[in-house]
Amino acid sequence: MSQHPQPTAAIRAVPATTPFVAPEELARRVGRSSLVRLGANESAFGPSPLAIAAMQAAVPMVSIYGDPESVDLRTALAARHNCTIENIVVGSGVDELLGLICRTYGALGDPVLMSHGSYATFAFQVIGHGLDLITVPPFSDGSVDIEAMLARAREIQPKIVYLANPDNPSGSFVDADAVARLRDGLPPDTLFVLDEAYAHFVTSGTLLPEGIDERTIRLHTFSKAYGMAGARIGYALASREAIATFQKIRNHFGVNRTAQIGALAALDDQAFVQHVVAEVARGREEYHAFGKRIGVRTLPSQTNFVCFEIGTRQAAEAMMHGLLERGVFVRKPGEPPINGYIRVTVGTPEERALFYEHFAAALDALRERVS
Amino acid sequence: MSQHPQPTAAIRAVPATTPFVAPEELARRVGRSSLVRLGANESAFGPSPLAIAAMQAAVPMVSIYGDPESVDLRTALAARHNCTIENIVVGSGVDELLGLICRTYGALGDPVLMSHGSYATFAFQVIGHGLDLITVPPFSDGSVDIEAMLARAREIQPKIVYLANPDNPSGSFVDADAVARLRDGLPPDTLFVLDEAYAHFVTSGTLLPEGIDERTIRLHTFSKAYGMAGARIGYALASREAIATFQKIRNHFGVNRTAQIGALAALDDQAFVQHVVAEVARGREEYHAFGKRIGVRTLPSQTNFVCFEIGTRQAAEAMMHGLLERGVFVRKPGEPPINGYIRVTVGTPEERALFYEHFAAALDALRERVS
Repeated sequence: MSQHPQPTAAIRAVPATTPFVAPEELARRVGRSSLVRLGANESAFGPSPLAIAAMQAAVPMVSIYGDPESVDLRTALAARHNCTIENIVVGSGVDELLGLICRTYGALGDPVLMSHGSYATFAFQVIGHGLDLITVPPFSDGSVDIEAMLARAREIQPKIVYLANPDNPSGSFVDADAVARLRDGLPPDTLFVLDEAYAHFVTSGTLLPEGIDERTIRLHTFSKAYGMAGARIGYALASREAIATFQKIRNHFGVNRTAQIGALAALDDQAFVQHVVAEVARGREEYHAFGKRIGVRTLPSQTNFVCFEIGTRQAAEAMMHGLLERGVFVRKPGEPPINGYIRVTVGTPEERALFYEHFAAALDALRERVS
Repeated sequence: MSQHPQPTAAIRAVPATTPFVAPEELARRVGRSSLVRLGANESAFGPSPLAIAAMQAAVPMVSIYGDPESVDLRTALAARHNCTIENIVVGSGVDELLGLICRTYGALGDPVLMSHGSYATFAFQVIGHGLDLITVPPFSDGSVDIEAMLARAREIQPKIVYLANPDNPSGSFVDADAVARLRDGLPPDTLFVLDEAYAHFVTSGTLLPEGIDERTIRLHTFSKAYGMAGARIGYALASREAIATFQKIRNHFGVNRTAQIGALAALDDQAFVQHVVAEVARGREEYHAFGKRIGVRTLPSQTNFVCFEIGTRQAAEAMMHGLLERGVFVRKPGEPPINGYIRVTVGTPEERALFYEHFAAALDALRERVS
């Protein structure tokens, strides 16, 4: 070994992966300065005008730190979720909190269970913390097989079980009964992490009722329905004991002050959120209708994106690149059984019209190449 | 042990500490809605007007994620520091990067060396990652004893040696020759972390020359001279190999998009930075003159704060509380030999005038109580 400082053995063993290649990098690769962004599940409908105004007013005071305890925001969130502020921790996005959870509950080599191909950044955090990622195959439409998750959890006794509900990248949703069955059937010392980043968009089905319990950490974000992905602010709801543990080790000064102020204003504008949810539901239906019209299967979705079936993994990759060359950024699920699909965020009506046009053209080009 | 999920043994062993009690919390304790903020070394001179304008213009687009690779900002930083973008990682403040460094280079129980009482958040990260924090007593004015650091490093072969230069909370500065002597004298596989958060404010003495080497990680921030503490953005300069390792495990989507845009604009306004540095130097001199006038010793400082000697630790605490009750937020160094001082950030001329008035009154009250 060379004579200079080396990372730990656990970190050296982590493979070099990036959870998501930046759209800015993808744009550079095809020589474009910008793209129609339908690949990162950002809100096409922006932040609430009240949040924008609050953030713009706050910018000159960005010279001071935000409150490291986010007391104003946690107070508002506690009222909303019917818990106390001792049940809430705010972080610079759900991703940071996923890392914090892995660090807190997982020792090197500990098993962690998730549905195969679900949220890539959770897998990235598990592997990056030297934990043993174990996955359960989902159903053929990418939706989570709760009974198989339960059976596997009883077998391997994982430290953490992760469920994104609704799921990303499939868009599928598991009803409250099944979520509760999973949670209640886990080994008693297994932590249940329920990532509800897309929960606002559920228009058919029932979310797990609010309520704190000692086995569960629920994650929420301002990145999706609130339209504040670039602000980096999310939160976890958990037992007082879990929050007190995070308090011992978390990055206390990690959240942008303007984001805290924007989140507080966004929370106060639930009418705007309802408007966004309705727009997303409309766009989702339009995507399904478009798929039906051109004979492309779509997956059911309770999120702000829809998966379109292209064919093989290679075909879906070619489609993604074809769209990129036409200036449209989408992603594709990385893992089977849905890695022959592309995942398309619900855009504005204008963005959707552009997508339909470029999708049809890219599909023609793809079929020509294949035939 | 109870039948619910438990943190790892290493995390359970971390004591419950908070690196810094929030000024918002301190204000609540004395029933005030705001304080004269001279306790967090924030810039009293704000961000550049160009940065403010750029951030305000960017706010409506906070619905999209920032570039996870911060390519535009890293390109500008690389030009400034005469290195390549592969030598730079951007994080949500230096604090996040200190955590990332501990996680990357320290395995449970590994020794880490710093000057006793230096930057509390580094100590917090070391302990929070289950590493063994070992400290070397500073000189009586709180300045770092480089020869003692070197001797101890050779003895214990630490994974990491940390030096804040200029130092926080003492304000002291170590000249380039001594920094190089420390770096070059460390065991070859010891990582040298040089935290230069306050480097802009050095007006007398020489900073270590720019240049990447495989043993060193240098940390810089937009929180101090650039006046963007609330934005949470900082960066590390290191070897390509170190940056590539961080890339495998870091939180890729942790930096606020508006902060990235503000930082880029702030970098472009070096005239503003020079104005801030001159204002800070003027305020620092005024603090020393004030101390001299009222017979209170001050420590030499190459930062945007000055330490005032009060007496015992208890007296300094009483002084801090006396100022707080009068609406002035300052902090005090937590560890000997300078825990009988209070640390006061250079404020605007108006804030400094308020500080002089309240300091004199609080000092009188303190002397009355003692006599």
